[in-house]
Amino acid sequence: MSSIDTPLDLTLDGGALTARLVDFPSVSGDEQALADAVETALRAYPHLRVDRYGNNVVARTGLGRAERVLIAGHLDTVPIADNVPHHIEGDLLYGCGASDMKSGVAVALRLAAGLTEPNHDITYVFYDCEEIEASRNGLGHLATAHPDWLAADFAILMEPSGAMVEGGCQGTMRAQITLTGTRAHAARSWLGDNAIHHAAEVLGLLAAYQAREVEIDGLKYHEGLNAVRVDGGVAGNVIPDECVVTVNFRFAPDRSVADAEAHLREVFEGFKLEITDSAPGALPGLGQPAAQAFLAATGGQARAKFGWTDVARFSALGVPAVNYGPGDPDLAHKRNEYCSLAAIALVEERLRAWLTD
Amino acid sequence: MSSIDTPLDLTLDGGALTARLVDFPSVSGDEQALADAVETALRAYPHLRVDRYGNNVVARTGLGRAERVLIAGHLDTVPIADNVPHHIEGDLLYGCGASDMKSGVAVALRLAAGLTEPNHDITYVFYDCEEIEASRNGLGHLATAHPDWLAADFAILMEPSGAMVEGGCQGTMRAQITLTGTRAHAARSWLGDNAIHHAAEVLGLLAAYQAREVEIDGLKYHEGLNAVRVDGGVAGNVIPDECVVTVNFRFAPDRSVADAEAHLREVFEGFKLEITDSAPGALPGLGQPAAQAFLAATGGQARAKFGWTDVARFSALGVPAVNYGPGDPDLAHKRNEYCSLAAIALVEERLRAWLTD
Repeated sequence: MSSIDTPLDLTLDGGALTARLVDFPSVSGDEQALADAVETALRAYPHLRVDRYGNNVVARTGLGRAERVLIAGHLDTVPIADNVPHHIEGDLLYGCGASDMKSGVAVALRLAAGLTEPNHDITYVFYDCEEIEASRNGLGHLATAHPDWLAADFAILMEPSGAMVEGGCQGTMRAQITLTGTRAHAARSWLGDNAIHHAAEVLGLLAAYQAREVEIDGLKYHEGLNAVRVDGGVAGNVIPDECVVTVNFRFAPDRSVADAEAHLREVFEGFKLEITDSAPGALPGLGQPAAQAFLAATGGQARAKFGWTDVARFSALGVPAVNYGPGDPDLAHKRNEYCSLAAIALVEERLRAWLTD
Repeated sequence: MSSIDTPLDLTLDGGALTARLVDFPSVSGDEQALADAVETALRAYPHLRVDRYGNNVVARTGLGRAERVLIAGHLDTVPIADNVPHHIEGDLLYGCGASDMKSGVAVALRLAAGLTEPNHDITYVFYDCEEIEASRNGLGHLATAHPDWLAADFAILMEPSGAMVEGGCQGTMRAQITLTGTRAHAARSWLGDNAIHHAAEVLGLLAAYQAREVEIDGLKYHEGLNAVRVDGGVAGNVIPDECVVTVNFRFAPDRSVADAEAHLREVFEGFKLEITDSAPGALPGLGQPAAQAFLAATGGQARAKFGWTDVARFSALGVPAVNYGPGDPDLAHKRNEYCSLAAIALVEERLRAWLTD
């Protein structure tokens, strides 16, 4: 049987190559062996220039085409949960990363090996540490160290999207709203000022909040403003002097991070509010010619991406980007994660048609 | 210098005996040596019958008087915090337990030794583990094992009360109100149901709650209903499916525990509410003849006790009880705890006058 010491064979069909990749453990932080195998396999193809930075591998055609398309996939997975090696039941290939996103990586590797004369120049990016803290994200490291390697007119992230184009992504912002009061013994509560009671108004604003829905480039976005944590209390006999409500605002990509912060400060006017982290959204960019052609080639249907993805990194670099991959987004990170073999074949076929028509 | 091996000398004046007791460490659970010393000292006085159960010492006169008064003090202290041995600055004796309540114990021991022919029969109770969980309270153990030792017409607990009679005590009840919802990813919050947002209504009820003030036997009680903890949240990107608000209800002694529970269920009607613990209050009982005479002897002024004290245990045994001790209740459990030497002398003088007039 194959093992991590067996070279990757990029002539296997998409399903078989996905199975091979699932059986090649690469939990976040432990991608080196797989990055080595990917690099070695790609270096066998003379139409590609292969570069490496850390455990990130970038392969590019250099045909002088008018436009360059970037196809990217992360090599890492969430921790294995008794779901390696893979197994197949009918059309479904089960295993860690089957959906998120070794099926997408398999398609990208197949295209890289097979498309010697594509109609656009293509940059293939295989990167590490997508599933963990943003500071370790390989795409982020490449953007800092070798931004020229990521130059492109349009980018496709092969994240699980159910073989449907998902455009843009919503931004996310977390903030802490701190209510203060005065501590006292609960037996003489009138000597204190209960900070938890002050949170009533904040939670009331959240409960009554009408989240905006907005259409951008034909895609419908749906915002959300929610408490994700509330924490207050000193002891069972003490009037608490502090209560913190942590909120998470998911905002449509027509708002910048600054707009989102201004909105939160307006909603919670008069309260002490501190932004603890944020990430911008990404506009779908489906008005771009390359995106239009891609969309037509993949069936003409697109939907909004609500979750935050690395699409936003490309957006920040000025590269319109979409998610398009064979995996099912609802299965990502689940123990029974699987991918449809038919979806793997379909996504490859459509990309191949678009890039060679 | 004295040590825990030196017998207690009950002929020392109240301040000197308090100092001696402060220097005799007896943190809750570690009262045996002090209980031994108290027992030995009291057994030297033939007008007293001395009994012992665990680290609880009970000394009684048996003069056949019409009424019996019980005077009680706990032997234990909260943990020592660099405040042993004692020191004296002017009128103030500093040290662990100076206020809560070795000054009260010193007065009780002095009365026990000196009042050979009091006008009431007197029962002196020195007990352990008052500062920790109720299940270990020595008075509770005595009430179960030897209820006859505690029989009395009126009881005085020498807890710190600023040399003023404090009558009755409020009851306390804790309850958890659990809000539920449906978990979802924060990026698609409309698929979930935010349990923290549901807490808005509960906190709103608390913020708007008008606490009752009520006069009983001439003492003003002041109730309170407060959140003492709120806790909800799963992760920064998850719509939480549970939020728990813990409330503490302090209720005047004209409500029973059952009344208090019914009131909470009425205030939070429609919410899932669970009572987690409760303790009944105690009526001041100042209408009783013995209490009236005691009140007159100590200056005629009384105030309500808001915090829960062992007074409620006597109330449950059918014995009217008050707090009356030289310590300052605001200093209890503080590192810089102290007691006024003048207050120690005053409280002893008034009790002695009342018991010998």
